[in-house]
Amino acid sequence: MQATIALLPGDGIGPEVVAEGVEVLKAVGERYGHSFSFSEGLIGGCAIDAHGTALPEATIEICRAADAVLLGAVGGPKWDDPKAKVRPEQGLLGIRKTLGLYANLRPVTVTPALASRSPLRPDLVEGVDLLVVRELTGGIYFGDKTCVYIRPDEEQAVDTCVYTTSEIERVVRRACELARTRRGKVTSVDKANVLETSRLWRRVASRVVAEEFPDIQLEHILVDACAMHLLRRPADFDVIVTENMFGDILTDEASMLAGSLGLLPSASLGAGKAGLYEPIHGSAPDIAGKGVANPLATILSVALLLRYSLGLDTEAEAVEKAVYATIDAGILTGDLAPAGQGRSTKEVGAAVLERLG
Amino acid sequence: MQATIALLPGDGIGPEVVAEGVEVLKAVGERYGHSFSFSEGLIGGCAIDAHGTALPEATIEICRAADAVLLGAVGGPKWDDPKAKVRPEQGLLGIRKTLGLYANLRPVTVTPALASRSPLRPDLVEGVDLLVVRELTGGIYFGDKTCVYIRPDEEQAVDTCVYTTSEIERVVRRACELARTRRGKVTSVDKANVLETSRLWRRVASRVVAEEFPDIQLEHILVDACAMHLLRRPADFDVIVTENMFGDILTDEASMLAGSLGLLPSASLGAGKAGLYEPIHGSAPDIAGKGVANPLATILSVALLLRYSLGLDTEAEAVEKAVYATIDAGILTGDLAPAGQGRSTKEVGAAVLERLG
Ligand SMILES: CC(C)[C@H](C(=O)O)[C@@H](O)C(=O)O
Ligand SMILES: CC(C)[C@H](C(=O)O)[C@@H](O)C(=O)O
Repeated sequence: MQATIALLPGDGIGPEVVAEGVEVLKAVGERYGHSFSFSEGLIGGCAIDAHGTALPEATIEICRAADAVLLGAVGGPKWDDPKAKVRPEQGLLGIRKTLGLYANLRPVTVTPALASRSPLRPDLVEGVDLLVVRELTGGIYFGDKTCVYIRPDEEQAVDTCVYTTSEIERVVRRACELARTRRGKVTSVDKANVLETSRLWRRVASRVVAEEFPDIQLEHILVDACAMHLLRRPADFDVIVTENMFGDILTDEASMLAGSLGLLPSASLGAGKAGLYEPIHGSAPDIAGKGVANPLATILSVALLLRYSLGLDTEAEAVEKAVYATIDAGILTGDLAPAGQGRSTKEVGAAVLERLG
Repeated sequence: MQATIALLPGDGIGPEVVAEGVEVLKAVGERYGHSFSFSEGLIGGCAIDAHGTALPEATIEICRAADAVLLGAVGGPKWDDPKAKVRPEQGLLGIRKTLGLYANLRPVTVTPALASRSPLRPDLVEGVDLLVVRELTGGIYFGDKTCVYIRPDEEQAVDTCVYTTSEIERVVRRACELARTRRGKVTSVDKANVLETSRLWRRVASRVVAEEFPDIQLEHILVDACAMHLLRRPADFDVIVTENMFGDILTDEASMLAGSLGLLPSASLGAGKAGLYEPIHGSAPDIAGKGVANPLATILSVALLLRYSLGLDTEAEAVEKAVYATIDAGILTGDLAPAGQGRSTKEVGAAVLERLG
């Protein structure tokens, strides 16, 4: 097949890890007879430096024209002033919203080789295989925001959390469809004992499952309870579906089950096939430019790209197998290797390519 | 001293655990020569059944007249209909708001005896001694809420998160004062890269510490990062201060460090000395009435009551020591004991009383 991939390396370690992702795409293209072409755009801090905005129009156009987008990470101390009007995250939030990517998939899989590196007891995390589907274009992230003086010395800040029936329906549907390809269980997470948006969320989720997915086993749990159960019984979860802010917190918590953020990919999908793929880690300014960042989350994001945007399941699985074989062989960057034995970004990338053969 | 304690046992296991708390208070009174009197009120589901409201006026009056309030838990399947207009949680949220209890203290301490019961690796959690100070009367819990049809078939729900300068100042001050009696470090948690309320939070926290607590070491972290760091480096935290919703999620997550919710007390404090003390666990309807609930979180809440509302530090420490001695002696309810070896609520309560002597 032919496909165009938009590359948005971003800031910090973004360019280093995206480079390894591109090598994997090229290798997959060669080995399976596909022709991938690449177009590159600026996003985040580097875009602010070049164009004064975190999401230049040109970047949006490149993404719109592509079959899928591979993103690195955005942000860094240089652009960290909370008072600044333009901030790197605006690029990330903007591209999600502009492309209508309402479902953010964050799988967490703990292989035996990783279980021993988790902060949780190995017996608890071994066999964990869960998928968080986080709503990504609604909620308190995108509602109205203000901050005004209501008296001298007294400011009042307001954020608004908004959800509508159809926003909830589509992401719950996506979660149920994904659960059908897995173990058939969906856990919907909300705070229905406090929030109106959560009560609507719970009602809509129940109705969608009852009417359209009678084969799916649905449970509702409160977000505070979920934060506990992720640690107490992580292997019980199959698909977790939740709103934007809760998903942000719970996925970072869940990432620790696998021992390192450096391993976790994500896919952000909308109505069409084109999606955006990115590691869930940040730009890690402390290690940027040193060639030691873990490229595996980005390479696993490439696998998701092959699966969800290009429909290349065999290729996606081949990439995932190559990554897990690399981990099992102990070829790891510093975040996962025993002290002093970390390999470079390029070495780990090369080890994956080798195993792709 | 003389003091009046309002008792709000509530629902489920609430009455069982509060009864043990009262025994401890009586014993402390006898042994240290204080005269505690008790008044009892309804809250939550039992109040709905009796009066049609989760927080009857009489209960508010009893609390207002008391030097401190000891609460059990509210809620249960009987009152769980999300469409109901009156719900048990309204009692809890209402009493917090009515009494102006803006600072919710949730300490998490992991003793060596507990470390082995944590889902986290014992080497990571041993020595954890952190205190979360959660803002309790503001944020998205108490902002305007609506749910309306904007089209046939399309509902729109809205929750509003509001914070003002003075609301943030007072809780940050409280956190800093507490940090001064501990290790002098405060971690302020927000989502300043997305929320306007968080940007105000961060600015105010920085200013309060710079102007009033130059001796305190302040760090800011994002809520998603905090959810990770609680698992990766829990022993690094001293005092964590955060807004209401983030505090709800993070404290339930942090509770797992200690292996069981059944051990974690909380104190909710306002401007005056009178505070409300409650275990952070819920009403546990599945085990209610069986006499097997863990009373230790409530007894540790009694210790906080003695310390913060009555200024009885020696007595508070004696209660805490008795609880830890009971744990070390392996006298534990089913949530912590090896399978089949759980003791009853009353046995564990009696073991604490014995060690108070
Ligand atoms: C950078 C930030 C705005 C973003 C988010 O909160 O969505 C990040 O934490 C993520 O999870 O992708
Ligand atoms: C019952 C519920 C409203 C409450 C809260 O969210 O504050 C509880 O979870 C708590 O943490 O005390």
